[in-house]
Amino acid sequence: MNRITLAHGAGGSMMQDLIKKYILRYLGGSGTEVPLEALDDSSVVNNIVLTTDSHTVKPLFFPGGDIGRLAVSGTVNDIAMMGAEPMALTSGIVFEEGFKIEIFKRIIKSMQSTCQEAGVFITAGDIKVVEKGALDELYINTSGIGRRNEALENNLAEIKKYRNINFRWLLDSNLKAGDKIIISGTIGDHGVAIISSRGDYGFKSQIISDVAPLNKIVMKLLMVGGILKMKDPTRGGLSNTLNEWSERSKVGISIYEENIPIKEGVKSACEMLGIDPLEIANEGKIVIAVLPGKVDEILDELKQSKEGKEAQIIGEVTNKFNQVVLETKVGGKRIITPPLGDPIPRIC
Amino acid sequence: MNRITLAHGAGGSMMQDLIKKYILRYLGGSGTEVPLEALDDSSVVNNIVLTTDSHTVKPLFFPGGDIGRLAVSGTVNDIAMMGAEPMALTSGIVFEEGFKIEIFKRIIKSMQSTCQEAGVFITAGDIKVVEKGALDELYINTSGIGRRNEALENNLAEIKKYRNINFRWLLDSNLKAGDKIIISGTIGDHGVAIISSRGDYGFKSQIISDVAPLNKIVMKLLMVGGILKMKDPTRGGLSNTLNEWSERSKVGISIYEENIPIKEGVKSACEMLGIDPLEIANEGKIVIAVLPGKVDEILDELKQSKEGKEAQIIGEVTNKFNQVVLETKVGGKRIITPPLGDPIPRIC
Repeated sequence: MNRITLAHGAGGSMMQDLIKKYILRYLGGSGTEVPLEALDDSSVVNNIVLTTDSHTVKPLFFPGGDIGRLAVSGTVNDIAMMGAEPMALTSGIVFEEGFKIEIFKRIIKSMQSTCQEAGVFITAGDIKVVEKGALDELYINTSGIGRRNEALENNLAEIKKYRNINFRWLLDSNLKAGDKIIISGTIGDHGVAIISSRGDYGFKSQIISDVAPLNKIVMKLLMVGGILKMKDPTRGGLSNTLNEWSERSKVGISIYEENIPIKEGVKSACEMLGIDPLEIANEGKIVIAVLPGKVDEILDELKQSKEGKEAQIIGEVTNKFNQVVLETKVGGKRIITPPLGDPIPRIC
Repeated sequence: MNRITLAHGAGGSMMQDLIKKYILRYLGGSGTEVPLEALDDSSVVNNIVLTTDSHTVKPLFFPGGDIGRLAVSGTVNDIAMMGAEPMALTSGIVFEEGFKIEIFKRIIKSMQSTCQEAGVFITAGDIKVVEKGALDELYINTSGIGRRNEALENNLAEIKKYRNINFRWLLDSNLKAGDKIIISGTIGDHGVAIISSRGDYGFKSQIISDVAPLNKIVMKLLMVGGILKMKDPTRGGLSNTLNEWSERSKVGISIYEENIPIKEGVKSACEMLGIDPLEIANEGKIVIAVLPGKVDEILDELKQSKEGKEAQIIGEVTNKFNQVVLETKVGGKRIITPPLGDPIPRIC
């Protein structure tokens, strides 16, 4: 392979290979608290959480959201998944010459309302314009910083009642056998909403993207405590998240297919298109690894929130094997391997 | 005007209008120490300096540098210009499908060596790939954070020996009548190197881009002290920098044309192309506003460094008028208005 393919940007194993082979080789070695090579949701430097995401979603507007809402939510969520409170965001916008200012205004207003929902501000920005044809409409990079707060400290204190730990942040490597896996709601909504809105896949659905900032519900859950790691299962979906946890925590994960919440419309769209709902991006869901002794409290708190009404316990961490294994509805077992990437290009 | 034009991304007054009319209107109001609406090199939130820049330079490799060196230097310099020490960077890369991995490797290695030169690490990153034709090769966003250190405190303490001040960072609004203006070296090198390397302007030159991280020389200058503001005159060049200072500090600035260092090759290229060297981007120069009582010491320190050998005092801040006025070599005066933007597209 000597050229970049779409799969290199799709969040799965192809991207991991590219990062390990070329990026970490030359740019790793910072020795900071959570460095680049942790490949977690964010890095941590001197107690400051730092993350970045570029957004190239197509179309710019889709059922349930738009690139502005996605750009703010994506970065807020990457900070929140570490257990941190977002402090400020940056926004780097690259336009194609000729982009309609009226549409830009709609995107900026959407960024504003999403920032208000999350309780965060964009404090720095940059604008570039390239000539017609050198970019498809508009891309937005959002970066951001976050900090520890009392919710994270409370969460760690709750864990310490049950287990000796030496971590200070919610990391992919924190899971141990016996921990329970929760998902906050239905999977695959964002991916199917995007495909459906493109029209060129020959189907329409009523599915709406779940894109939303999750930092407020995350803070409530941390105040309950007992959470080892959270992740918004974006590119590569639930399958990618669970495989990353399994690899970095050196544990196995059992998942019960019948417990995974999924809308009928998503299921039928995936069957028609021949794609796996476990591998599709979500933009407003949380997968949570939680101490067994705290799992009911966390589930209760989720079910009382608008983001978590359909939350379910979907699995358990184990030492019996070191892979992700799906227990199917018909009683079989299937190993869930890391996806090459998300089956849907330009999903975020 | 209802569509985005190249000038909206060129760093001058068109971009300022777009930012004020659409971005600040909806995204301003954070109330942080240095907010978005300061439109300075970086924002400051809870003592953390935060900034972002997208890089779309064409070609990716040019005499004296490449997009990787530019991306690291640009963000390091935006942090340093506030008087801060860079702590960590992020890198968000968007590829066009089919990009050669061998070229990517060259860019990453260039980012590595520039990071080493600056003494900073990239701790977080993101990769996206869009389909062939949806982007011209590769764009890189770099964001970054910085912090106060003893050099900035020393600089402020030196100023306080001469003047009562209430600022804690180097801001565009810090200038007062009598302050001296220094430039660290020749202007226009980066812009002419880019144009020349494109070939389609019908000329070749030996000029090499000045792109470089400036944080180390900045820290040395702060240890001398007396600096009110620094700026790397990128898009819109020296003209844009001086106009921003004049506007935000509510002062006039006199500039002496004969003192401005400029290479013969840059001068002749500009004459041939009919562009003003004052309006072209530099990527390795610093414009410095300094207390009159410290100007000789700062100039001495600069002249001892590799970055500042050709440094010159080029002007003075005044209350007699509120514009930027160039005193020409032939004894005339010319008002330097804010440029619409940089005359060279995709310069950074």
